[in-house]
Order: sequence, then structure tokens, then C-alpha cells
Amino acid sequence: MNTQRVEYASRVEKWKVFELSIDGPSDGNPFTDVELRADFSACGTSISVVASGFYDGGGVYKIRFMPGHEGRWDFVTSSNRVELDGHRGSFVCERAAPGAHGPVRVARGYHFAHEDGTRYLPFGTTCYAWTHQPDALQELTLTTLATSPFNKLRFCVFPKHYDYNRDEPELFPFEGSPEKGWDFTAFKPAFFGKLEKRIGDLLDLGIEADLILFHPYDHWGFSTMGQEADERYLRYIVARLCAYPNLWWSLANEYDLIKGKTIEDWERLAGILVEIDPYDHLRSIHNCMPFYDHSKPWVTHCSIQRQDVYKTAEYTDEWRAKYGKPIVIDECAYEGNINWGWGNITGQELVRRCWEGYVRGGYVGHGETFVDPNDILWWSKGGRLRGESSRRIAFLRRIAEEGPAEGMASISFGWSGWDLPSGGVEKEYYLFYFGFNRPLFRDFSLPPGGEYECEILDTWEMTITKLDGRFSGSFRVALPGKQYMALRAHKVGERAP
Amino acid sequence: MNTQRVEYASRVEKWKVFELSIDGPSDGNPFTDVELRADFSACGTSISVVASGFYDGGGVYKIRFMPGHEGRWDFVTSSNRVELDGHRGSFVCERAAPGAHGPVRVARGYHFAHEDGTRYLPFGTTCYAWTHQPDALQELTLTTLATSPFNKLRFCVFPKHYDYNRDEPELFPFEGSPEKGWDFTAFKPAFFGKLEKRIGDLLDLGIEADLILFHPYDHWGFSTMGQEADERYLRYIVARLCAYPNLWWSLANEYDLIKGKTIEDWERLAGILVEIDPYDHLRSIHNCMPFYDHSKPWVTHCSIQRQDVYKTAEYTDEWRAKYGKPIVIDECAYEGNINWGWGNITGQELVRRCWEGYVRGGYVGHGETFVDPNDILWWSKGGRLRGESSRRIAFLRRIAEEGPAEGMASISFGWSGWDLPSGGVEKEYYLFYFGFNRPLFRDFSLPPGGEYECEILDTWEMTITKLDGRFSGSFRVALPGKQYMALRAHKVGERAP
Repeated sequence: MNTQRVEYASRVEKWKVFELSIDGPSDGNPFTDVELRADFSACGTSISVVASGFYDGGGVYKIRFMPGHEGRWDFVTSSNRVELDGHRGSFVCERAAPGAHGPVRVARGYHFAHEDGTRYLPFGTTCYAWTHQPDALQELTLTTLATSPFNKLRFCVFPKHYDYNRDEPELFPFEGSPEKGWDFTAFKPAFFGKLEKRIGDLLDLGIEADLILFHPYDHWGFSTMGQEADERYLRYIVARLCAYPNLWWSLANEYDLIKGKTIEDWERLAGILVEIDPYDHLRSIHNCMPFYDHSKPWVTHCSIQRQDVYKTAEYTDEWRAKYGKPIVIDECAYEGNINWGWGNITGQELVRRCWEGYVRGGYVGHGETFVDPNDILWWSKGGRLRGESSRRIAFLRRIAEEGPAEGMASISFGWSGWDLPSGGVEKEYYLFYFGFNRPLFRDFSLPPGGEYECEILDTWEMTITKLDGRFSGSFRVALPGKQYMALRAHKVGERAP
Repeated sequence: MNTQRVEYASRVEKWKVFELSIDGPSDGNPFTDVELRADFSACGTSISVVASGFYDGGGVYKIRFMPGHEGRWDFVTSSNRVELDGHRGSFVCERAAPGAHGPVRVARGYHFAHEDGTRYLPFGTTCYAWTHQPDALQELTLTTLATSPFNKLRFCVFPKHYDYNRDEPELFPFEGSPEKGWDFTAFKPAFFGKLEKRIGDLLDLGIEADLILFHPYDHWGFSTMGQEADERYLRYIVARLCAYPNLWWSLANEYDLIKGKTIEDWERLAGILVEIDPYDHLRSIHNCMPFYDHSKPWVTHCSIQRQDVYKTAEYTDEWRAKYGKPIVIDECAYEGNINWGWGNITGQELVRRCWEGYVRGGYVGHGETFVDPNDILWWSKGGRLRGESSRRIAFLRRIAEEGPAEGMASISFGWSGWDLPSGGVEKEYYLFYFGFNRPLFRDFSLPPGGEYECEILDTWEMTITKLDGRFSGSFRVALPGKQYMALRAHKVGERAP
């Protein structure tokens, strides 16, 4: 019978993190010598989950678990160390808190929903290295996010060394230093604890954490640790983080720029991830130039960086057809004015790309890169938003939330629609997007039998103008001859033929 | 010995139209019954040209000839009718008038020059049906052209029946009427005489006539006359027009929309054109959707309509590589506000496309389609220009005229230039175009050994700002953070390594 301190809460809300904390050995290397897990089972059901434990420093081991079923749960630990082995206990999983909907899953092929079925429409942004900035800046980033339209944040576990981000972080994930090198067998719990806190902060804001596990912006050696260290790191971070309901795994950013890792390496790492994440969080891998083969079964959705300078989100329907998975264009270029073409498009052009993707049934992400005297660029460090696009993305998010529950798909109007992308749900809801075109009028032809209400959306000025009357069959609509207009038509009745 | 009236001038300037006029038979059908040609030979040389004659109505036959060699020319006619046969004469070809440079030819693979070697940089526009409008409107079109930057005009022989152009023309090319039908064996010389006058008017303005021989915008039957009538028409019009130095043959507009004509038909017609045009005027064929196979030997240059709504002139370098011929994008979409996407882009977007093509070594054409209370749209009927693009195209033309005599070609700056198209002549002249990107600065790296003067061009505001000093190797340039900027660098000296 063990006498170690064992702590856990007796009650936890559904889809929150249940944490079991056990005192254990601190001799040797607890990160490599000690194996620990717990088997959780929901009483009166056949539901059981195996959760891996991890060493959190100071002689403390933890096992985290996210219950997805209400009622009593029992657990028992197993370990190769007697102090950690055979601990048993129970707790009650209570009803989910308001706003807690569980992890996001792929839904209806090209879209997303939380575990409880609540629709999730990703409106992402990117602050790659925000968790490696001073605390005050991290807090500012959270404040900005709280009033932004963004409900997914893309960022890196490892610190980032790249243009506009050459500062050394305060904390590193491993014992050691840039000067002396690293002990890849010895994790720094404080580093991961801070990361977890931020994932929790995002959860409180209703924001999904699209966490990048590997990336190439490195001068410390974290991108070239070797197979053994990569796998140890992966197992450690999954054990620590997988109980967070708002986690998405981005296996890599710009995987193709990471030196020394082959497709076989990525597949091996992905295989481990699939094996050890009991919650099956969303998994993707993000390109610089060539796409990863998103048809691989482990890839849940396409996380895309545009491959062409000029044409980006307009490929959404082709990619949907090719991969049969949700299209999330995490980098279509950013609003800003830095030297590189990926970071100096206008707010108008970024918002246009968001609409081009949305109307075709995809999801386009935001980013911002304005030259700053203190080198604080949103895309890397977070901070404040300065651009013109985020308000308009909020407008698009509103339109999307008012849109069809089934999600958008391209709808072809044949020859007459070659120049006007449109999507929606046949015979129910249509959204036509004019992009940079600026007609003074347009003829539409909706399926006979339905009566539609039509609204002209100015996607830049964020206005909605309802057209008088109801429309059926073929009709002409006057337009203001401005760029970035859309027409929304939804069925409100039947008309006898 | 014939006693018919035979008229011709005793002197003609080089590359002007020499016309021989002979009275002949008017019985039967002179268009089909009578064969007539003249053999022209330049005295003291081996140069000779066979010119076909044509019936001009009223018992008058004509043979037109464009001398390309100074000095005395002799001619002799041949005919199956004795009245027209065996007429001999001589005339003197004088030095070319100032500004007369002869027909345009392909030069240096991807570019153009007049017969005398003078560089020709095409800046085209389109007024498809301008010659079928009332005279006053035709005169207005010429007035507009006179002060425009355009030196090539694309238009149709046959009248046009299409959106924004449903008027019936005053004159038709054949005897008959829309109600009674047409006699395709009987041309109307007055129709062709008016067309010739306008080609001559364009010549006086220094404008090339890019004449469209067949098109699909038809409700009279001229696009479906059948093989025999097509060929008779082709031979007639070539006989009438080929002596005009400013003529380009566009075998068809949107060839792929012309019902009933196969690739074999186009190849047969092109073969006849090659055979009967003694001056080898430029020849092309313009698509709606799929390109014609521009690698066919008879095609002198690619006359392109964009195939993609979003990406147009950015394909110029790919097309150059594929076809090995000049790239002339006659339709990249038009500035305007009509219902169709090909006719409602902004002036900014049109000018951007012109620059994107130019910097890659191609040539992009203009067109304008603003909704008009009198339905007078430049692209179809001519008239006045209302848009913002033509002034900026004039600025681009100035930049091009100041550019390298060899013509532009894409220049790759490898990885660092992926987002900044550039062209010029290696180690002499570089033009970088930022398009819709708007950086606050950019690093450049020019080949060592040269000293360059650099200017920032605001292609929309039409300003040129010279940067102080001379530049060599790698350097940074501050930019205004605006769209549509370019950097021009030309070598002004050597620098010791």
C-alpha cells in the first residue's frame, strides 16, 4: 500500500481537465526512467480511457484526463515505480459548464463541430511566438483576442528565431542553455506550465489552440534533435496537454523547410500522435511550398499556406475535391507592410481572400505584419491589432454564423456563373461574392419553386441592405458598382410554378 | 493591245499602298468569274511580288501593292479576261515618309519591330465594332485614339451582335439583307471601302489594325457561311487589304465559340492566308476558353484571352516558355462596371495586369466597358474613354519606351524574388514590380561589378523618384507602403570588385 500524497478533485465538469497529482521519485532521470499511466473508466458503461502521466518536477507526477461522459469515474494508476503504482480513486463528472462544448471534430466532411454537436466555424489568426514574449505582452495579446473575431490561434511550442523575432525567450523547454547546449532528456516543467496556462487562458476566451509541435525557425537545435528526442518530446507534450479540450495538433509549420526530417519521419511522428492522444484532437501539417499529402488518414483537415502569390483561397473548391477534408487556409498572406510578399497585402485583399474561401466552403485565417518601431508584429509576438481586416472578418463571421447549419459548399450556376463564385445550400441559401469585380447590376437565376429574400452585403463597409419584395426564378439586381459586394439570398417560401 | 482605262500613280513612298485601277467586265459575277493578279518586280534586283486583284464594283478592278524596296518597279497583269490581262507599267518607290517604318514583324523571339528595325511596343485596345457605327462616332473614336497611348486597335470585319451592341449596321459585306438573306458570292465594295478608309485613318495615327476576320457574335450568318464562302471572303479581303502596312490578321476572336468550325477549318483558312498574303503580316487566333495551339507555325504571336478569373498576366513567363513566341494578352478583362466579370474590373486592376505582363516580357491590352445610357461602350463601339487606366497605360508606355531596346524578359532573383516579379536585361536594366503588395522597404541584390541608378516608380500616381547616389550589390530601399509601386534600376557604371 502506497503512502504517497495523491491529490485530485472529487468533481470536475465535463470536458474540463481532471488532474491527478502524485508524489514520486526524483532520483535518476524521472523523465526517462519512470513510466506512469492511469486507466479511467466510467461506471456502469464500457467507456474507458488510458491517460499517460508525466513528471512535473519537484518529485511530482501528474496524470491529466478530460472526461467526456457525465457520472462517476474510477481510475487506477500503473507504473514501473512502486510509489506511483496502483493508486485508485473516483470522482464525479458533472454537466458541462455553459459554453463548454468539448473538442472540435470534423463534421459533414468539410466542416467542424464540437463534441456536443455545436457548430464550430474557424476564424483563425496567428501569433507564432506569443507565449515566448514578456508576460505583459502576453496579457495584452489575450486582451486583444478577447474583443477580436478570432476563435482559433496558431502558435508554436518551441521558441522562434526569424525575421522580426530575434529575441531570446526567458524560458526554454529543456535543461541547458543556448551557450552550453541542451539536455533533451530533461524537460523544464516551468516552460510547459506557462504554455499550459496560456492554452487555458485561450480556453476561457473560447479560442482553440492550434499548437505547432515542430517548426523550422530555429537556431537552438530544437528542429534537429533527432528521432529519439523528437519522440520523447512528443510523448511528453501529449501527456501534458491532451486533456485540454481546445487543443489542435499542428504537427509542423512549414514542414518542408525543416532540415533533416523526411516524410517517413513525419509519418512516424504522426503515427505516435494518433496512438497516444486518447481524445483524437484535430491533426494537420502546414506547408511552405509543396503541400503535405493531406489525403493521409491521420490528417483530419488541410492546413494550407497558399502556394501561389496571386491565387490563394480561390482554389478552395479544388482542394476540397482533391482531399475530401475541411480546407483551412491558415496563411493566405497577412495584412501589413513588411518587406515580404506574404506580409504586405492590404486589409481589403486579406478580407477578399477570406470571403473567396468562405463562399467555396473553406476557412481562411488572418494574420498581421505591420512594421513596428519595437518589432512587435502581431503574427509573431501578438500585442495589438492595427489593421483594417479584423473588423471585416468579424462581419464575415456574423454572416457565417447566420449561414446554413450544414456549412457552405460551392454552388455552380454553370456558364452564367463563371465569374461570380457562389456557395450555400441548394434551394435554401445562396451567397454570391463579387470580390474585386464591381458591376452596376447582375442577373440572377434561382431555382424555380422558391421565393427568396435578397440582401446586398457590402463586405468592406459592413452593411446589409435588404431588397424590397421576394424574388423567384430570374431577376436583375442593381448594385453599387463597388468592389467587395455580395448578394445573400435565402428561401422564405414556395411559389406555385 | 488593251484599251481599258488603267490608272496608277507614278511615284509612291515605301510602305505605302500603290494602287492599280483597271476598267473591266461587269457582266456575270465579277467576284467569282474573274481572275486577276499582277507581278511586281523591283528593277535591278531579284525582288518580285505577286499581288492579287479584286473587283471593286462599277466595272473597276484593283490591284494593291506595298513596295518594300526603293527604286523603280515594273508590273504586268494577268487575267482570265482579256480586258484585264497583260497591262504593263512602271513606277518609282521613293524613300519612306517620316514615321513610316513598314509592317510589324516578330523580333528577338518575344518582341516586335517594324520592317525597318524600329522597335514596336504594342499597347493595344479594343473597339470590336467601331467601323459599324455612325460616321460621327467613328470620327470621335479616332479623335480619342489620337490622344491615347494606344498603338494597336483590335476590331472586326463583320458586324457584331452581342450584349450592348444589338444595333443593325448601315452596311453589310454582302449583297442581300437580314430579311432576305445574303449572296455570299457578291461582296459590297462600299462596305470594304469604308473599312479600308478606317485602316488608313489608323495608319495616319500610327496605329496597327489588328483585324478580326471571323467572330461568333453573329445573327446574320457570317460566322457560318460554309467552307467555300469562307475561303472566297478570305481571298477577297486579303486582296483588298494586305497592302496596308499596319495590318495584323486576327484569324478569329473567340474561335472556340464559333459554331461549326473545326481546328481543321482554322488550319485550312490559316494555310490559305499564309499562301496569299505576300507581306506575311502578323497572324494570330484569339480564344475564349481553351487556347488555340499557338505553337502552330502559322501563328506569329499568342493573342490571349485570360483563362482564369483571378490570375492573368502573371502567366506571361509560362506562356513565353511554352510557345516561344510574343505574348499579347488582348483581353485580360476590361475596366468598367458592366454585369460580366470580364468587363467590370477597376482601373487599378487593369493597370496592374498591364505591368504584370510587361515586367515578364509580354504585352497586355486595354479595354473599357462602362454602362452607358446610350449603350456606347468603348470596347464595342468606341467613342470616348471614361476610365482611369489609359493615362496610366501611357505612363507604362513611356517606361517601356525608355526600357531596354532588346525587350523585357523575366529575371529571376531566386528564392528572394519569389514575391517580386522582375524583368529586364541582365546586368543592364532591372524593373521590379510590387503589384498589390505594399512594403515599407525591400532589400535588393544586384550583380556585383555594376553601379546602378535607381528610381521608385509610382505606377498609379505616375511619378518617378530618383534615389540619391549609386547602388551596387546588396542594398535596402525605403518604399512608401503603397500598392502599385515599381523600382527601376539601370546600370550607369562599373565598380571595382
